[in-house]
Amino acid sequence: MCRFIAYIGPPILASDLLYAPKFSLITAQTMNAAEMSVTVNGDGFGIGWYNPSLDNEPCVFRSIKPAWSDQNLRNLARKVHSPCVFAHVRAASPGITVEEVNSHPFACGELMFMHNGVLGGFKQLRRKMLRLMNDTAYDAIQGSTDSEHMFGLFLNHIEDPYGTVTCEELVYAIGKMFDDLNVLLIENDIRQHSYLNIAVTNGTCMVAVRYTTNPNVQPASLYYMHGKEYHCRGESCVMEPAYGKPSSIVLASEPFTSRRSDWMKVERNSMMIVDETMRISFKHVEMDLEKIDFESITPEIG
Amino acid sequence: MCRFIAYIGPPILASDLLYAPKFSLITAQTMNAAEMSVTVNGDGFGIGWYNPSLDNEPCVFRSIKPAWSDQNLRNLARKVHSPCVFAHVRAASPGITVEEVNSHPFACGELMFMHNGVLGGFKQLRRKMLRLMNDTAYDAIQGSTDSEHMFGLFLNHIEDPYGTVTCEELVYAIGKMFDDLNVLLIENDIRQHSYLNIAVTNGTCMVAVRYTTNPNVQPASLYYMHGKEYHCRGESCVMEPAYGKPSSIVLASEPFTSRRSDWMKVERNSMMIVDETMRISFKHVEMDLEKIDFESITPEIG
Amino acid sequence: MCRFIAYIGPPILASDLLYAPKFSLITAQTMNAAEMSVTVNGDGFGIGWYNPSLDNEPCVFRSIKPAWSDQNLRNLARKVHSPCVFAHVRAASPGITVEEVNSHPFACGELMFMHNGVLGGFKQLRRKMLRLMNDTAYDAIQGSTDSEHMFGLFLNHIEDPYGTVTCEELVYAIGKMFDDLNVLLIENDIRQHSYLNIAVTNGTCMVAVRYTTNPNVQPASLYYMHGKEYHCRGESCVMEPAYGKPSSIVLASEPFTSRRSDWMKVERNSMMIVDETMRISFKHVEMDLEKIDFESITPEIG
Amino acid sequence: MCRFIAYIGPPILASDLLYAPKFSLITAQTMNAAEMSVTVNGDGFGIGWYNPSLDNEPCVFRSIKPAWSDQNLRNLARKVHSPCVFAHVRAASPGITVEEVNSHPFACGELMFMHNGVLGGFKQLRRKMLRLMNDTAYDAIQGSTDSEHMFGLFLNHIEDPYGTVTCEELVYAIGKMFDDLNVLLIENDIRQHSYLNIAVTNGTCMVAVRYTTNPNVQPASLYYMHGKEYHCRGESCVMEPAYGKPSSIVLASEPFTSRRSDWMKVERNSMMIVDETMRISFKHVEMDLEKIDFESITPEIG
Repeated sequence: MCRFIAYIGPPILASDLLYAPKFSLITAQTMNAAEMSVTVNGDGFGIGWYNPSLDNEPCVFRSIKPAWSDQNLRNLARKVHSPCVFAHVRAASPGITVEEVNSHPFACGELMFMHNGVLGGFKQLRRKMLRLMNDTAYDAIQGSTDSEHMFGLFLNHIEDPYGTVTCEELVYAIGKMFDDLNVLLIENDIRQHSYLNIAVTNGTCMVAVRYTTNPNVQPASLYYMHGKEYHCRGESCVMEPAYGKPSSIVLASEPFTSRRSDWMKVERNSMMIVDETMRISFKHVEMDLEKIDFESITPEIG
Repeated sequence: MCRFIAYIGPPILASDLLYAPKFSLITAQTMNAAEMSVTVNGDGFGIGWYNPSLDNEPCVFRSIKPAWSDQNLRNLARKVHSPCVFAHVRAASPGITVEEVNSHPFACGELMFMHNGVLGGFKQLRRKMLRLMNDTAYDAIQGSTDSEHMFGLFLNHIEDPYGTVTCEELVYAIGKMFDDLNVLLIENDIRQHSYLNIAVTNGTCMVAVRYTTNPNVQPASLYYMHGKEYHCRGESCVMEPAYGKPSSIVLASEPFTSRRSDWMKVERNSMMIVDETMRISFKHVEMDLEKIDFESITPEIG
Repeated sequence: MCRFIAYIGPPILASDLLYAPKFSLITAQTMNAAEMSVTVNGDGFGIGWYNPSLDNEPCVFRSIKPAWSDQNLRNLARKVHSPCVFAHVRAASPGITVEEVNSHPFACGELMFMHNGVLGGFKQLRRKMLRLMNDTAYDAIQGSTDSEHMFGLFLNHIEDPYGTVTCEELVYAIGKMFDDLNVLLIENDIRQHSYLNIAVTNGTCMVAVRYTTNPNVQPASLYYMHGKEYHCRGESCVMEPAYGKPSSIVLASEPFTSRRSDWMKVERNSMMIVDETMRISFKHVEMDLEKIDFESITPEIG
Repeated sequence: MCRFIAYIGPPILASDLLYAPKFSLITAQTMNAAEMSVTVNGDGFGIGWYNPSLDNEPCVFRSIKPAWSDQNLRNLARKVHSPCVFAHVRAASPGITVEEVNSHPFACGELMFMHNGVLGGFKQLRRKMLRLMNDTAYDAIQGSTDSEHMFGLFLNHIEDPYGTVTCEELVYAIGKMFDDLNVLLIENDIRQHSYLNIAVTNGTCMVAVRYTTNPNVQPASLYYMHGKEYHCRGESCVMEPAYGKPSSIVLASEPFTSRRSDWMKVERNSMMIVDETMRISFKHVEMDLEKIDFESITPEIG
């Protein structure tokens, strides 16, 4: 479920990411997401950003309201000027309540995490996931979403979640989180498929995953564009091309600018890593799920 | 904008109206309204009902949350057992805030009122509408919607809005409200079209209107069904036919039961009157708008 | 923390309990609780009631808003006419979020539960409490309060929480819940004191506890009055005396009617049982806490 | 009603104003305002600030929740670093709803406005106030508070509320607003007293008023401190003295730092003007109310 955007690069105004583009996250994707079967993302939203001139911890603003009508988000987006922004609009999974603590991104120390999709069998897995966690990871969980519980598994593999966390540690912990999920899915014989699009950042680098356990369908969509600089003139937002290494990267569940050629797909079941120097690399993500006899019915994912 | 349902007949459980049917107001029409260009109705909701064994004033519960995720609405709907129920899901017009006082139905004394559509030129008309009202009507307005301001004009023609109001008075006041709007549209040369689907009740009778100023398009949809009794078995909800006068009437922006043949359209630009004896009659609603040179662009209505 | 009211007897209007009395829960105790060190109870509220003509499950309406300004509560209270009503205004413990799922009363099947006070050492105990629970009890917990986790321990001792639960079972499960807490406090060497005023009902009988682990202070206040009938004339609300067995009982954190002589204290560390025939009895509640070296500082309780 | 704080000076962290001090606006004054008869300010809050490196318009974040439990406010306050901050906690006047649009500060163009107190006879005056306004001032009003309607009267005397507004214009418009109120009170023979503590800013200068029509009591409290720099070390917040003209000024309904000698009272019925150069001056505010036969009962003000 859900839609998200992540940005890293020179400081930009959040409204250029979230409101200015014609097919923007807030004004279009909340109501008419193009590439999802669930097209309404009205179950709360969140935005998180860094202000490195002050400190290294993100500022997170989350709400249970639909993003499209929230005046506070609109006001803040016009004043948030940041080199690293995460934004998320939620379509709650059935049975999981719409509460402020259930809105993404989730934060802990200097880290932010968000998810789009669904973890198959979460109801059966929840207690087992919690049992795996040390007290620090456990205490960081405030809500009841599958997403935040995966964040807990991720934090469980970070040595000091409240300290400085390197890019390598992010990559490592995401990998271990997938390993944990793999074991849990097998041990509990979870037959529903999972859709796990994820983004995590420490404010200076970013790791994203596009993944599904289902070999018969594509994972939820995930795109990126990179270049020298992202900027808007009215509704016309473009990524200026960079010659050599990019200095600006946008990741999004759906392309939101009109020049579609700017956007590239994150490949199926792969992890995209943007390091502190803005170097982009990819890694394959794999689970060993042969032993599971998945339900043939494809779940409708948001 | 918006979608609504009105019921009058033998006491029923609100959840049979709002949740049980497959294409129900809360679970389907909030996210996928079929007959509107704006398909998401997530800007708050409201429900109002009467409990005649206690008194004649409606009980109204309104919220700014999307109806689909509201646990309180779900709980209440299972316990509200009433002979007269109004329910409304809102898609806010651009520029009008999502606030509890802006959710429908609006209530005053023993009356309830709700609206689906848009009053053309409301921004210019608002002050003029307020100037027409006596203090009682003026003071009854708490919010900032075009809908509630029309309710104010309506109340202005009710002799004692906090006393007992007859069915005839409802019909009369709705007529006068349309006359007032007609004068306002002409005097202020409002060139945008209006879409005015309205329902009003005193708990024992009901008046509804399906209207647009635009001769080139249909008004927003409005349907009704009548019979002996409306009831559900699982998702299968039907209106039992009545031989002779009906004892049960459902009015809805969109049919929500599977037997489509149960549903009839309220005709274009007409008023439907259900009196205390459940007799149904219709009246033509007309404005004299020849002098207005309407914009040719059809506004997108919700 | 918090204040609550419970009623059982002939059907009454909730507003006579909650709004009519001069020193009422909603209008006075939310802002000026008289017998607590924390005098503001503005962190959400809840009301639950039964409508036996429909079914045996309570209807619960909960919110994160302060009760004093909530128009929906005001509207509902004037229309809820019920033989069994629970109402609660919350003062959140530090560190526990104000979310709808954290408002009392908590419901499961035909049961409702509410708490006023604090469980010492909850942060350390939480995981251990969850581990004691079977899946049914575990899944019934939606929020993050000490109160709801105690409800989970309680449900853990009910054979079928979604079936019919007798008064004896309520008494038994409350006793076992105290036993569990006793063991947990000792095993984890929790040195902070607990304040555990609790009320639970199945709609026809009611069990309440007034308890603290602290021998040096009184538990949070808890009063009751009983008689033939509770009724209000304007602000003047009285309990008509009954000759013989009462047919009407009100339990409250604080007396809220002016005739103070109507009110009796529930004794320190005792359980009050009101059975289906309205017979009132009391039982001593005891924990064996000798091994714990409690902090001498008395926590400030709400 | 209500409590507020205004700051102008070198950029500071909002949390140093709102959370750090022992008797802070958010953690203490919301629940235990010391100098008011209404001690709970739980009916919403707002914060507004300027970020001159971006533009001259304030960013406003408002909510209907009690400030004390709002996690978004807590997060934002740690990241807002600004040379001009307004913050307000509300205790709603009876009969005026708690809605986001009713939370202070109110903003228009580059201006912010907030109010603590009550305008006597607002219910009778409302329509007359609205009639005085030009369309720009009228359209700027979104809610239903006496406070925002006074803001409308104020804007009515600003030539271009959406352009650059000088300090002189602020002083002028506040003066004219008081003249308008004077005429309205007399013409409508309003016999209830008014309590009008007000602060307005354009981001570089600030005008505040402490006023009551009641000769028998003091106006609601209003204090200020000035110096070189305001800063906190833990809970210990102080204003460093300035030799010569101050560069930093804090205005507050109640002193919130422990060194009480830092704080001075704004005199009864006077206007405090802090110009762009941080020069402080005072002006007497006077209404001619001899013709009104005020009620002798002193209203309880918040």
